[in-house]
Amino acid sequence: MTERAYTVAIVGATGLVGAEIVAVLEQRQFPLQALHLYASLHTAGDTVRCGDLTTRIEILDQARFTGADIVFLAAAEAVSAEWAQRAAAAGAVVIDLTQLYADDPAVPLVVPEINAAAVAGFGGRRVMAAPDPAVIALAVALAPVRTAAGLRTLFATTFEPASTSGRAGVEELQRETVELLNGRSPGHEIFPQRLAFNAVPHIGEMLAGGSSSEESRAVAALRRVLATPDLPASVTRVRVPVFFGVAVAATVEVDRPLDPAAAQRVLRAAPGVLLDTDALAGGYLTPADTVGQDAVCVGRVRTSSAPPRLDLWLTIDNLRKGSAVNAVQIAEVLVREHL
Amino acid sequence: MTERAYTVAIVGATGLVGAEIVAVLEQRQFPLQALHLYASLHTAGDTVRCGDLTTRIEILDQARFTGADIVFLAAAEAVSAEWAQRAAAAGAVVIDLTQLYADDPAVPLVVPEINAAAVAGFGGRRVMAAPDPAVIALAVALAPVRTAAGLRTLFATTFEPASTSGRAGVEELQRETVELLNGRSPGHEIFPQRLAFNAVPHIGEMLAGGSSSEESRAVAALRRVLATPDLPASVTRVRVPVFFGVAVAATVEVDRPLDPAAAQRVLRAAPGVLLDTDALAGGYLTPADTVGQDAVCVGRVRTSSAPPRLDLWLTIDNLRKGSAVNAVQIAEVLVREHL
Repeated sequence: MTERAYTVAIVGATGLVGAEIVAVLEQRQFPLQALHLYASLHTAGDTVRCGDLTTRIEILDQARFTGADIVFLAAAEAVSAEWAQRAAAAGAVVIDLTQLYADDPAVPLVVPEINAAAVAGFGGRRVMAAPDPAVIALAVALAPVRTAAGLRTLFATTFEPASTSGRAGVEELQRETVELLNGRSPGHEIFPQRLAFNAVPHIGEMLAGGSSSEESRAVAALRRVLATPDLPASVTRVRVPVFFGVAVAATVEVDRPLDPAAAQRVLRAAPGVLLDTDALAGGYLTPADTVGQDAVCVGRVRTSSAPPRLDLWLTIDNLRKGSAVNAVQIAEVLVREHL
Repeated sequence: MTERAYTVAIVGATGLVGAEIVAVLEQRQFPLQALHLYASLHTAGDTVRCGDLTTRIEILDQARFTGADIVFLAAAEAVSAEWAQRAAAAGAVVIDLTQLYADDPAVPLVVPEINAAAVAGFGGRRVMAAPDPAVIALAVALAPVRTAAGLRTLFATTFEPASTSGRAGVEELQRETVELLNGRSPGHEIFPQRLAFNAVPHIGEMLAGGSSSEESRAVAALRRVLATPDLPASVTRVRVPVFFGVAVAATVEVDRPLDPAAAQRVLRAAPGVLLDTDALAGGYLTPADTVGQDAVCVGRVRTSSAPPRLDLWLTIDNLRKGSAVNAVQIAEVLVREHL
């Protein structure tokens, strides 16, 4: 075991994900020597506690990252585009939590339960990235299925919460809900359509082929993490009026039939999976039930033999394993094996 | 054209669906001679207008159905189980809007755009049935795809609103939402889990194989309406915190590749389909946009050629084409061709 401690910086430290990274660093007792927190002007000056460290939030514009070992980027994609190379040039290793690098083969995309070895590839650009919560859920649940039965095709539909658009998304859903309950017609700004009491199959920009940018990136990211570059996949991503917690209804066609008991055995033994088989409660967790969980929750395991197929209901806390926990796990692999 | 007019009864006349049937009978100028409305005790005595007729709501317990030509059953399944045979024995033809008969081959299951000819089979039991809104949406959108390209396998995930559980469902979602916004923890009664700001993959009872009863019935019903008794189908039905409007994310594997233009041409020409290709608005309608529409709305048409596949986003107003309009269309076929 190393006794070294590390200097860590978080960009976007006061956002939903950034604040959760601070909490996870403390909870997992990450060996911190110093913590630098960067945010936009309006939160600068506030102080944040993390274990024994008390840190004052600084304005990102003035960041130099001198002496930083690891920089988490947990702000907007435009911020990552501007700051990732600067932080790497200052000598830090960057762990990016936006989807800017989802299909950039020069940047390792890591879900430690699945492809921790990919961390070894950080050296070229000194930038690594984490997939988004829906992709993490799919990767963690499907990797053991691939090993046991082969993956032939994936069909997935996501149920994604307002909070994957940050505090502004949460506030927009809250405001719209209150206005509708009071008989007013709310406008929308963060989301492309009204989200309250609605379902909006439109996350990111719509591309020419009819997919959204975030559907296309999810397929690319999942193929990279699972190392299945040709996996056929139909993915539909839908925003629903939920504050926290992502759900995914996934069906995979597999090469070899799995019976339900075998499928459950494989999933129960998989790292990072919490299998729910409480038949009394329906055998599933909802997004609300999943908030606070650090595992990918798998329920409603159904199988068929002709054609061989497996249906799963996945849920994940988008701030915990979907973001902060996964990113800190990447940092743990990095310091254990490479720094 | 017949000049005959008909005596119609509606059981569950003050529910969301029953009240919509009254409205649709008037809007479509159904030839009414008399209208009998039945409900439970607490609404009996109220009066309802439908065109030139003013009708007093009667208590169902006292119904005899003497002289009724058509009886719509739009209450709970237990009510249909008790009253369908009595109404048929009194000489009426029953149109059931519950899912009691979803997989009963002796009862025609009708979506008039697809299988109007099935109405001819009402004679044995004098009972017909309409599928639920998600099945109607799938049937109307997939029938033309089957004709153009063949159907090999269906994968569908539904987004279903509180109102498919009636006024009590709407009230539970409203109450839960208000309580959560006020920092209280709501209980739930109608739905098996909290629905507000959540997603619940549990509609009906969970069966031994892991599917819910309403997933199993949906597959059976869709196969019957499309006359594809062996169609492999993975269906996951999910309740979301929406008041009105159903959405379905559907992927079909087809026999022969369709390019996007061909798929859109086929869908635009299909009866009962409103194809949305407004790229500026994302090329889809949300459940909220669909309220008040009498068509099945189809958007986000995506195709792939290897394997040949078609992805669709379907929305339907569950009270209009999903319930009342479809049921009145069945009655129109019946009086035009059989009574």
